[in-house]
Amino acid sequence: MIKVGIIGSTGYAGQELVRILLQHPDAEIVWYGSRSYIDKKYSDIFGNMFQLVDDVCLGENMDELADKADVIFTATPQGLCSSIINEDILSKTKVIDLSADFRIKDVETYEKWYGIEHKSPEFIDEAVYGLCEINRDDIKKARLIANPGCYPTCSTLSIYPMAKEGLIDMNTVIIDAKSGASGAGRGAKTANLYCEVNESIKAYGVASHRHTPEIEEQLSYASGEKVLINFTPHLVPMNRGILATSYATLKEKVTYDDVKKVYDKYYKDEYFVRVLEKDVCPETRWVEGSNFVDVNFKIDERTNRIIMMGAIDNVVKGAAGQAVQNMNIMFGLDENTGLKLVPMFP
Amino acid sequence: MIKVGIIGSTGYAGQELVRILLQHPDAEIVWYGSRSYIDKKYSDIFGNMFQLVDDVCLGENMDELADKADVIFTATPQGLCSSIINEDILSKTKVIDLSADFRIKDVETYEKWYGIEHKSPEFIDEAVYGLCEINRDDIKKARLIANPGCYPTCSTLSIYPMAKEGLIDMNTVIIDAKSGASGAGRGAKTANLYCEVNESIKAYGVASHRHTPEIEEQLSYASGEKVLINFTPHLVPMNRGILATSYATLKEKVTYDDVKKVYDKYYKDEYFVRVLEKDVCPETRWVEGSNFVDVNFKIDERTNRIIMMGAIDNVVKGAAGQAVQNMNIMFGLDENTGLKLVPMFP
Amino acid sequence: MIKVGIIGSTGYAGQELVRILLQHPDAEIVWYGSRSYIDKKYSDIFGNMFQLVDDVCLGENMDELADKADVIFTATPQGLCSSIINEDILSKTKVIDLSADFRIKDVETYEKWYGIEHKSPEFIDEAVYGLCEINRDDIKKARLIANPGCYPTCSTLSIYPMAKEGLIDMNTVIIDAKSGASGAGRGAKTANLYCEVNESIKAYGVASHRHTPEIEEQLSYASGEKVLINFTPHLVPMNRGILATSYATLKEKVTYDDVKKVYDKYYKDEYFVRVLEKDVCPETRWVEGSNFVDVNFKIDERTNRIIMMGAIDNVVKGAAGQAVQNMNIMFGLDENTGLKLVPMFP
Amino acid sequence: MIKVGIIGSTGYAGQELVRILLQHPDAEIVWYGSRSYIDKKYSDIFGNMFQLVDDVCLGENMDELADKADVIFTATPQGLCSSIINEDILSKTKVIDLSADFRIKDVETYEKWYGIEHKSPEFIDEAVYGLCEINRDDIKKARLIANPGCYPTCSTLSIYPMAKEGLIDMNTVIIDAKSGASGAGRGAKTANLYCEVNESIKAYGVASHRHTPEIEEQLSYASGEKVLINFTPHLVPMNRGILATSYATLKEKVTYDDVKKVYDKYYKDEYFVRVLEKDVCPETRWVEGSNFVDVNFKIDERTNRIIMMGAIDNVVKGAAGQAVQNMNIMFGLDENTGLKLVPMFP
Repeated sequence: MIKVGIIGSTGYAGQELVRILLQHPDAEIVWYGSRSYIDKKYSDIFGNMFQLVDDVCLGENMDELADKADVIFTATPQGLCSSIINEDILSKTKVIDLSADFRIKDVETYEKWYGIEHKSPEFIDEAVYGLCEINRDDIKKARLIANPGCYPTCSTLSIYPMAKEGLIDMNTVIIDAKSGASGAGRGAKTANLYCEVNESIKAYGVASHRHTPEIEEQLSYASGEKVLINFTPHLVPMNRGILATSYATLKEKVTYDDVKKVYDKYYKDEYFVRVLEKDVCPETRWVEGSNFVDVNFKIDERTNRIIMMGAIDNVVKGAAGQAVQNMNIMFGLDENTGLKLVPMFP
Repeated sequence: MIKVGIIGSTGYAGQELVRILLQHPDAEIVWYGSRSYIDKKYSDIFGNMFQLVDDVCLGENMDELADKADVIFTATPQGLCSSIINEDILSKTKVIDLSADFRIKDVETYEKWYGIEHKSPEFIDEAVYGLCEINRDDIKKARLIANPGCYPTCSTLSIYPMAKEGLIDMNTVIIDAKSGASGAGRGAKTANLYCEVNESIKAYGVASHRHTPEIEEQLSYASGEKVLINFTPHLVPMNRGILATSYATLKEKVTYDDVKKVYDKYYKDEYFVRVLEKDVCPETRWVEGSNFVDVNFKIDERTNRIIMMGAIDNVVKGAAGQAVQNMNIMFGLDENTGLKLVPMFP
Repeated sequence: MIKVGIIGSTGYAGQELVRILLQHPDAEIVWYGSRSYIDKKYSDIFGNMFQLVDDVCLGENMDELADKADVIFTATPQGLCSSIINEDILSKTKVIDLSADFRIKDVETYEKWYGIEHKSPEFIDEAVYGLCEINRDDIKKARLIANPGCYPTCSTLSIYPMAKEGLIDMNTVIIDAKSGASGAGRGAKTANLYCEVNESIKAYGVASHRHTPEIEEQLSYASGEKVLINFTPHLVPMNRGILATSYATLKEKVTYDDVKKVYDKYYKDEYFVRVLEKDVCPETRWVEGSNFVDVNFKIDERTNRIIMMGAIDNVVKGAAGQAVQNMNIMFGLDENTGLKLVPMFP
Repeated sequence: MIKVGIIGSTGYAGQELVRILLQHPDAEIVWYGSRSYIDKKYSDIFGNMFQLVDDVCLGENMDELADKADVIFTATPQGLCSSIINEDILSKTKVIDLSADFRIKDVETYEKWYGIEHKSPEFIDEAVYGLCEINRDDIKKARLIANPGCYPTCSTLSIYPMAKEGLIDMNTVIIDAKSGASGAGRGAKTANLYCEVNESIKAYGVASHRHTPEIEEQLSYASGEKVLINFTPHLVPMNRGILATSYATLKEKVTYDDVKKVYDKYYKDEYFVRVLEKDVCPETRWVEGSNFVDVNFKIDERTNRIIMMGAIDNVVKGAAGQAVQNMNIMFGLDENTGLKLVPMFP
């Protein structure tokens, strides 16, 4: 039984970790961390957990936690994980960080886009970017995982085969992404009130969203060249789900079958990536509550572009689900242990 | 492995049966019945099932199905199950009917409220009303289960202890219930379009809804007297969930602790019924995707009434989940096998 | 041109006052008060007002405001209006208070249910309860209006004819009400976040909501007897709208036509109250954005009860619209001036 | 008083025409046409119109209608207007067609994208494309208006100044658009049910949506060159609203101020087009219920692209509102007569 500690268990990603781990056959939560709710019963905050979780919330005593837990998930704001991690902790326990602290290899880029100083740059190199389908082998040996961002997971996986095979002009990549409101977090802000989000759609962080360099870095690895993209996130009035619609110019004429083969090459053995049938567009409702990534593409011969689409549940594959997938890999379990969640509809 | 056939697998309740049974360790679906989609791939209709279900939809050949399946779920419109059932079928397989055909013991009452002739009244007596927490012992021995309606499940369970213990004046019971849109079914009607349901609430079937006699019958059994109630359902702009707010006059002065003891007497050992803590009101979000019934009550000393509240997921405990719970009981499994679904939030 | 000042112009009710008054032919807003946003451009907060309102938000200098404005709307939390009002202000300007400060004639009842001390009880007697359809004559002469609460407006108007004519047993009145999220206000609370409200329904303030004594007082006036009721509000995932479903036992046997005549007696000449046709249930979508109250009823002969239903837009007839209706009456305008807003659908 | 006939008055656009025209000081509806609801009271279908509209629905007797009405709005499926129009009708009345029949000048393009034969190509040349801000002068003299599509209105107006001034490479234009569900119409289709649309987002019509050639034609006029674009519409769970996020490569380095001047050049005197302040992104909630188009842009120096954004209410500026704006122009009224609708929030 893997003993799990969660720092930040009362955000949406943290709560989803709890939901998933309660149904995981080989894991047991030993620490419900939450700075805001110390000593409060976890199920008083999340009524869904009534009679399922009896624990009260604890603070951030990392030393104690490192002794108790085989793995720590940090589902916390940027800057927290990097400020509390150290060699002693990593020598005792594994850490899966759901924040952005260790996702970007270039510390200057991190500090510029996030506007904060990185408190433990010495671990950046060691940290493995936990996009499981791409970095599985490194994850197996890792002590510290940088769990990918929600948008980067969806965007990268839907573009990856085309980038890797060199079929698209990487300088033409434009990603127009749409997310449900849980992506905005559980902080009490006027902008996130029901009446402010409902019945509206907007773009935000245009040409400046922090997930941009993360996606660029991953697409650079895939394509072998330095990539600059446009990435525009939008807020959609729904609880869960991310849809990424990406555009790129094709380097040469390709058919549907050509491209289908490329996607199948990378994904046909991946349990969590589903390459949809011809002309079927991904919809977030079909992955809700699950760890699936639904991807597909459409070639537009008129403009010589390919439209690549991906859908995930931002709280699962975009956060807690992928984190557990990383845990499974790190501990030598079947990758989909506890994660064969059938998407819930409607 | 229990072999399961589903008639009506492409409605919302039918699809939820599929979702639940795919995750059930001791059941296997052998027949995806759907009159409207014969020969169509199931996962072409429900994209969430892509790569999880490879089957195509079949028709209603009950003889063949009775040979193949250990249990048949009929998630079909009123009148269908009663028109296809017969002794031969029941001698070969068990039937769990999610329609209203066998819920009401008095055939005249059924025919009056439903406006159709009952085609197999000879099985009404045998059929067991599958409200598991109340009729568990009879369910064990049943061949034919009348799976309770969504509103009756939620209403009856939230009022049952008070009725059974004779603490309320049964002639004063008023049930004001609210349901998400999946309760209206998957038929293509203008009234159920997104833009017609969204951003609105309405009552419907006022003083005439078909679940009224079903609730009255169950409350009559509980209280030992003939009960007439007011039942008013409302349509709420959300996918899932039923909340029932019920009112009744107290026969004598009781305290919170008195009533709490009464609820605990009936429910403290029930896995699926959660009596909430004092002053916590049930919310449908806390049971979404699960088979839980959250109940609680509030005594109003000013008016000498008790307000009894219950929340369920109408598609789970109000339909598919309770049907599987019945199956578990009928086949001697642990009642919550495959049903320990943690509610999904948000 | 009536010069209007608004205190609390950046809440949902305040903003709706702005929307309505901008389209009012005889009114002009001269003061956008908002404690939280002083010196900030109004249209920076509410983008719908861009290029329509150029003003910046001001504070609460009541003396200056009383000199400038012919009427002041206070769309503020409980306790504010009563703490700033005085004879000098009322001698210079009229005040329409959208809070509860002057709604309840018995100061002890107010202080008990609201948990605060009333700062100017000397004006309670003078204040007129601005339920226009009932108190029109007094409103004409008033200096100070207590604009009714949203739930009380909807509840009282849907029950009033039956109470006034003595056709129902007032001790049996139960009001089960449902409101959209704008009723919870614009404060940044976790409980009001999109993901917390969406896809759920719950009761709140059961047997303890502050609108209870307000409704009881109005129904007492109507029926001529002291009335105690049960009132249960619910939160519904939609922006606007209140539906009240009320139950009462009939004193004697009445037909649909009998009751219809009673409703018509009080409402057939009322522009804003629409008694719907037989068997048509009020729906909040049909009044959205308008000042209408849609009412109807259903007699249940089985239980000898009547179910009375009413629907309003809580922000309009439940707040800003009725406030403007009061203004129109006070200033001798046609009551529906600037208020002939056609409900917006979908 | 302009006498107005509406063919297709029971779709969402038709109903919105009614809402707007009821509040229009110089227009009067004389014909509520609806093939599906002949002889049915209009307010029985749309309860918001109860006591506001007493008329019953009529059929499509164009000759009678042409005699009665000064202008006919056809809010009907593609192919209907072109099949009933003729010289006689146009000699007696003006026609504003909300369908696509006369939007595309090249009949082959129309027939290819719409898959139907054009029944009156002889009127295509005469028809004026009713994008009021661009074609105002031609509209004044027109007998037949092709009211623009919802997506083309939003897309074209947000890109127009850049195209007209030659500042962007027209071959790089990509439009990623998002629409509320009213854009899908009021037909009873399973895909448009509440539970199918709610809590999900998807792209549809990828590289094949019929609004593509319409947008291309308008951008070609603006830029003076033949334009091919990518246009991807998405369905968003909300009633109203379209947001278009468009991308293009800049031909040369420009600053924010340069581009702001360009937008102001075309729009600063336009009542209905609001160029937002720097860094403010259009949101559909801020235009809901109004005829406004909110536009803005962001320059991304890293990629040398401009992101152009526009938001409209698809039912108003994207359909009925623009149709009335066209009517106003054709009849010599102030363009915003009856259209100074303040956006409704929340």
